[in-house]
Amino acid sequence: MEKWIIHSDLTSDSELFVGENLMGQYPLIDLCQKLKGHVVICSDVALKNLYAKKLSETLNADLIFIPSGEKSKSFETANKVLGQLFKLQCRRDTVLIALGGGVTTDLVGFVASIFMRGIPFISIPTTLLAMVDASIGGKTGIDISYGKNLIGSFYPPHAIICDFKTLESLPENEYLNGVAEIIKMGLIQDASICELFMQGLQKNELIYKAIQGKIKIVEQDPKEKGLRRILNFGHTIGHGLESISDYQMAHGEAVALGCIVESYLSMILGFLSQNDFELIQKLFRRFSLHLPKNFRRDSILKAMSFDKKNINNALRFVLIDRIGHAIPFQGDYCRSTSEVELLKALQWMEDQYG
Amino acid sequence: MEKWIIHSDLTSDSELFVGENLMGQYPLIDLCQKLKGHVVICSDVALKNLYAKKLSETLNADLIFIPSGEKSKSFETANKVLGQLFKLQCRRDTVLIALGGGVTTDLVGFVASIFMRGIPFISIPTTLLAMVDASIGGKTGIDISYGKNLIGSFYPPHAIICDFKTLESLPENEYLNGVAEIIKMGLIQDASICELFMQGLQKNELIYKAIQGKIKIVEQDPKEKGLRRILNFGHTIGHGLESISDYQMAHGEAVALGCIVESYLSMILGFLSQNDFELIQKLFRRFSLHLPKNFRRDSILKAMSFDKKNINNALRFVLIDRIGHAIPFQGDYCRSTSEVELLKALQWMEDQYG
Repeated sequence: MEKWIIHSDLTSDSELFVGENLMGQYPLIDLCQKLKGHVVICSDVALKNLYAKKLSETLNADLIFIPSGEKSKSFETANKVLGQLFKLQCRRDTVLIALGGGVTTDLVGFVASIFMRGIPFISIPTTLLAMVDASIGGKTGIDISYGKNLIGSFYPPHAIICDFKTLESLPENEYLNGVAEIIKMGLIQDASICELFMQGLQKNELIYKAIQGKIKIVEQDPKEKGLRRILNFGHTIGHGLESISDYQMAHGEAVALGCIVESYLSMILGFLSQNDFELIQKLFRRFSLHLPKNFRRDSILKAMSFDKKNINNALRFVLIDRIGHAIPFQGDYCRSTSEVELLKALQWMEDQYG
Repeated sequence: MEKWIIHSDLTSDSELFVGENLMGQYPLIDLCQKLKGHVVICSDVALKNLYAKKLSETLNADLIFIPSGEKSKSFETANKVLGQLFKLQCRRDTVLIALGGGVTTDLVGFVASIFMRGIPFISIPTTLLAMVDASIGGKTGIDISYGKNLIGSFYPPHAIICDFKTLESLPENEYLNGVAEIIKMGLIQDASICELFMQGLQKNELIYKAIQGKIKIVEQDPKEKGLRRILNFGHTIGHGLESISDYQMAHGEAVALGCIVESYLSMILGFLSQNDFELIQKLFRRFSLHLPKNFRRDSILKAMSFDKKNINNALRFVLIDRIGHAIPFQGDYCRSTSEVELLKALQWMEDQYG
């Protein structure tokens, strides 16, 4: 087992435990004992028989289930969970544990941050995507009709427990969602991730590297004033695609396509070599990439207009100048593009994947 | 004009400006210019013609109105305001200004804290209650069926602007809501407030003292781990009364009655002298005090069971041992009472005010 401390100037540090068979073992039991309060586990209902029931017995915890799927990241579900916490007589000393993928950790983190203005929160991500991305960095969020994660808070968990054992039960498409984020981390910061990945999957080593990469970024810029924006590479277009597909498109596929098109944009803007661009396409060859059926250029432009990086109504993109390096742009780590180049990139995307 | 900085280890300091005729003048214009972003004013609709329209012209700001009254401190209104912010193309650089009483500043602060995970927020409290209480200390909140302020966040405003001029248009009952909090501040921390008050209303001096008193407390304990609990004096019972009246009872009357009954509790527990208790009753003589029509002892006990100070299902009260001093209780600043004494205090309340 590895243990890291994620330092944060947000509110408090997070302890991160990574290893095999951590569920229901030390350190979780230890943490709950130290925090002393009443423990409530809020779990994806799909994990009910797999982990949730057993864990609630081990920790003598109450159990709340939320439906699987992105639709649960809503005000409605947040409100229901809050109501259940009050019914369970929860108070400020209640410890809230999220058990599930990114939907669960984002939603439950948000609930923990606003229940009585914040209660102790422990995150147990059970998907590769949540381990390498959603659970690290203190972001919580829910979706509204205008887009994903547009409502939320910065609320670092007390602890994060990544148990590799849970990845064994993960379906292939869920697994690929995480792989897309791992490759993205390689593209923006750590070329060695891409090299390792091309050599064949050194699974655990890749996960460690991706987690460490994310920690390095969020510690330097927890509130996304600059550097942290690079994590958004591939996501300006990726989130747009997800939005117009009404979140039916897998996050990994949307991000993979987004990374390719934003690399294409980096290339036509003169930053990225054709050679690197072709390598990047190869990195994503395991993904089945095609645009949502109802794709229309004006729909994605509208969806992207709600992107959090935008200023003065101008779309801004993270760009790379080689595999492993996002361009700093004087600390902005993103820049606006002319409409001509953006439309050229979208046209290329339609030609390739439409 | 006075200017103070409220230091905070939450996320950032707040600038506090107190004086006459500050609305639409320096410092507000200066602040908005420094922050650069698109400005949106979210105002109580009752202030539309009084201040809101003029201020929006001065600041070239968009304007959102919320209905007057406690019912607006809801998920529903928060959701509506969030939707309007998206319609107005707001982004992370949008500056959100709350203009109104505590309902407005609490609600809009909450919205600012969760919109895209937090945007700059400026609070312009226009009631005495909001100036001396709600707007200071970084708490935001909304009500749900289980009680007041049970959902919220700690989110200090960028700046708070208390313009005494706005108090001139305040109705008497609104004014008394603030007076109750000023007297409470005197009871828990600063006997000189009570003395000044008994001598006749030195309005501005009292407001300054109450604001400074609150700053002193919240700077020492921003997240209410101990000392800050003393601000809750009178509110355990006060909130209970408001809850069972379905928030029809004025906050000032509920707090006044709560302060008297919690002083009575302090007396029968042997901490407070009869002389001080009688003085406290006199301090609140301007208030019309009577229990809500549907008062029942089991209803208030149920309502108080959701109080945020409770641990292990035990009610806890802030107690005073003289005018101007809340009892530290080893850093807890509150303690549980036996059922016998609590019921005795409730019985006394029914006899006096039923």
